[in-house]
Amino acid sequence: MADDLSVVNSARVSFAKSSDKIDDAGIGLINFLMREHHGTPFEHNAFRFHVKTPIFVAREWFRHRVGSFNEFSARYSEMPPEFYVPEADNVRRQTGKPGSYKFEPLGDEAVRENARRAMSSSIKQSIRMYNSLLHGGVAKEVARDVLPVAMYTQFYWTVNARSLMNFLSLRLPETALLEIRQYAEDVEKIFAEQMPITYKAWIDNGKVTP
Amino acid sequence: MADDLSVVNSARVSFAKSSDKIDDAGIGLINFLMREHHGTPFEHNAFRFHVKTPIFVAREWFRHRVGSFNEFSARYSEMPPEFYVPEADNVRRQTGKPGSYKFEPLGDEAVRENARRAMSSSIKQSIRMYNSLLHGGVAKEVARDVLPVAMYTQFYWTVNARSLMNFLSLRLPETALLEIRQYAEDVEKIFAEQMPITYKAWIDNGKVTP
Amino acid sequence: MADDLSVVNSARVSFAKSSDKIDDAGIGLINFLMREHHGTPFEHNAFRFHVKTPIFVAREWFRHRVGSFNEFSARYSEMPPEFYVPEADNVRRQTGKPGSYKFEPLGDEAVRENARRAMSSSIKQSIRMYNSLLHGGVAKEVARDVLPVAMYTQFYWTVNARSLMNFLSLRLPETALLEIRQYAEDVEKIFAEQMPITYKAWIDNGKVTP
Amino acid sequence: MADDLSVVNSARVSFAKSSDKIDDAGIGLINFLMREHHGTPFEHNAFRFHVKTPIFVAREWFRHRVGSFNEFSARYSEMPPEFYVPEADNVRRQTGKPGSYKFEPLGDEAVRENARRAMSSSIKQSIRMYNSLLHGGVAKEVARDVLPVAMYTQFYWTVNARSLMNFLSLRLPETALLEIRQYAEDVEKIFAEQMPITYKAWIDNGKVTP
Repeated sequence: MADDLSVVNSARVSFAKSSDKIDDAGIGLINFLMREHHGTPFEHNAFRFHVKTPIFVAREWFRHRVGSFNEFSARYSEMPPEFYVPEADNVRRQTGKPGSYKFEPLGDEAVRENARRAMSSSIKQSIRMYNSLLHGGVAKEVARDVLPVAMYTQFYWTVNARSLMNFLSLRLPETALLEIRQYAEDVEKIFAEQMPITYKAWIDNGKVTP
Repeated sequence: MADDLSVVNSARVSFAKSSDKIDDAGIGLINFLMREHHGTPFEHNAFRFHVKTPIFVAREWFRHRVGSFNEFSARYSEMPPEFYVPEADNVRRQTGKPGSYKFEPLGDEAVRENARRAMSSSIKQSIRMYNSLLHGGVAKEVARDVLPVAMYTQFYWTVNARSLMNFLSLRLPETALLEIRQYAEDVEKIFAEQMPITYKAWIDNGKVTP
Repeated sequence: MADDLSVVNSARVSFAKSSDKIDDAGIGLINFLMREHHGTPFEHNAFRFHVKTPIFVAREWFRHRVGSFNEFSARYSEMPPEFYVPEADNVRRQTGKPGSYKFEPLGDEAVRENARRAMSSSIKQSIRMYNSLLHGGVAKEVARDVLPVAMYTQFYWTVNARSLMNFLSLRLPETALLEIRQYAEDVEKIFAEQMPITYKAWIDNGKVTP
Repeated sequence: MADDLSVVNSARVSFAKSSDKIDDAGIGLINFLMREHHGTPFEHNAFRFHVKTPIFVAREWFRHRVGSFNEFSARYSEMPPEFYVPEADNVRRQTGKPGSYKFEPLGDEAVRENARRAMSSSIKQSIRMYNSLLHGGVAKEVARDVLPVAMYTQFYWTVNARSLMNFLSLRLPETALLEIRQYAEDVEKIFAEQMPITYKAWIDNGKVTP
């Protein structure tokens, strides 16, 4: 239900007008709305995503309150043994000061591979304990306490374009967590495909949420 | 973007399952969710309405915060000379006590017709003054101050099924304002058409918002 | 429950720290949060206002969804015969083009006085009709349909500082409706008194909502 | 800023009335509002909690969108080595069928103690790995991926009484996760202390959110 026309028509209801398609005036209107931070016309649409992410990414994602979520439940279903470990290039160290932290690759290739392998091995040990607890009759909702935040979860997310732009403006910048940034880039692509004129106006106005 | 399948699939993500169509298990699941007040699976969809109502109805409608609105602006556009006066049968008097008011037709047909005509004539006088002020150069946003809440406005409303059920549960009952109840009945019809299984489950569970 | 300390402490929970009072580091932190658009720490507080405004102002106010409202009900109580008519200086005409309208005083003093008197007289006629309908037994919720949007209503508004700043950023500028701007200026004063450091940071950062 | 009087006065604004204290009429009004599901008068107040919970409890808590959260950040601060393992009595197994699961203590005391010790030992191993990664220069935001959801986090939560009642109605019942239920019971006590009349009305009306 996401298209640029919904933006134009919900804005034009102010003048009791509507259109069947977007012309130059419509494009101009979308730019105007974006520039002047008239946000509500960007809400009359909906995107629905089925997302699979590590828990620590989902934790940041669910902080976005304007939108709807339904998530996999580890109370009632067994967690699949799937987990995230960063690519070697993304095993990073933190530099800089509070408020302006930077991240760069840690040591050399061997150091990073080593860290990856250590993480992976620790997570696998936790998964083995999870399975062992389940096998011993412990409830899923208890056994999962030992599982790390690197485990994959999945969820449905339904959101309108305005809230989606807010998500992108917070989760695309360099300061955002690398792992959520990668998801935000995919969300950005889908947004650009579905609402190309709105997307262009958003880019042209500095990626600020209207 | 409103269908029953979205309810089933967003709920089944709890179990990492999904379906292409609704079968008996899906119908049972929708009933279970409604009965147990699991509301979030009813949020992964969107209805968009273009509504034309008197201002006093819009005033109640806009109190529903979970949803999106864009409305006609009397600051920038001239209000069309369209207004609401109740049908003679709906010219009513109020009886009963605070907390349990009742309404019944006022007097006889002649009394009601008389009241209608008086209302109509007063509103027309206000519209004449509005036009006269505009004609004298007064800004639209000032001249409109004299217009009554019986004037028609129009707006776009985008809302998910959960919030729509909340709207219906509050605006369909006898205690709701007659004029918004009539709109709520139309909204209910569209809801029943688009999401028949969800609608039936909602009816069967006493029209309580999940 | 609104003070600057709540901002500092809710932000410092990120580091598992808290303070009893605000020092220079606290002031610096508030500035940092404002500049970097970290908005959530500004939500852990609440302002409650009892507001009396013309209906057309309340209509704009209630569009701010993040906050709580309870309003006078013309369904159950008789509307007091109180209404707004602009001061002569504020009887204005609109110039400019869509998207950049401007307003200036209409004609000379006599023209403006004349317009005021005409508005006032029209509104009084509507109120007389309202009373006459009530006297004839028509329900309050029906009779009020003839009342103009210039009538005063009253409401409670409870809101946190972040949503309050959003209200101010939209309702203080020149482009906002004069009549809501005047209320926004009063809200701004109360905000400045209760949360002076947050207020200063908001001013210094261009009155942009964090 | 949470008291029963705010409920009474925000409701009485409907009649343009207000009170300085709660009398029998006020108590009756609160009961009426609760029974008739007039929820908005319960929003003109605020509770602020500083909560320390395991991550898996915080994950459920943060699903409550009407309210404000600020949480400890494992990106920028080192996670303290504090974690949750259920008391022996709460090491439980799950019985029953989907939609009506039940939980009961697992095996005998020795079995439960054994499971606790295994959980504890697995979590400690994860924490050792976390420390080892930090020691090797890995960024906090990467190293924490191996930490389990049993780790304690902390957050500020600000919420009004209506949303708090919704939280309680979902998190107090037997079907809720034991660990969040224990927190909900503490929240309930504070609610009962601060708004005793509202609390009593809520209990008397079956703990349904108005």
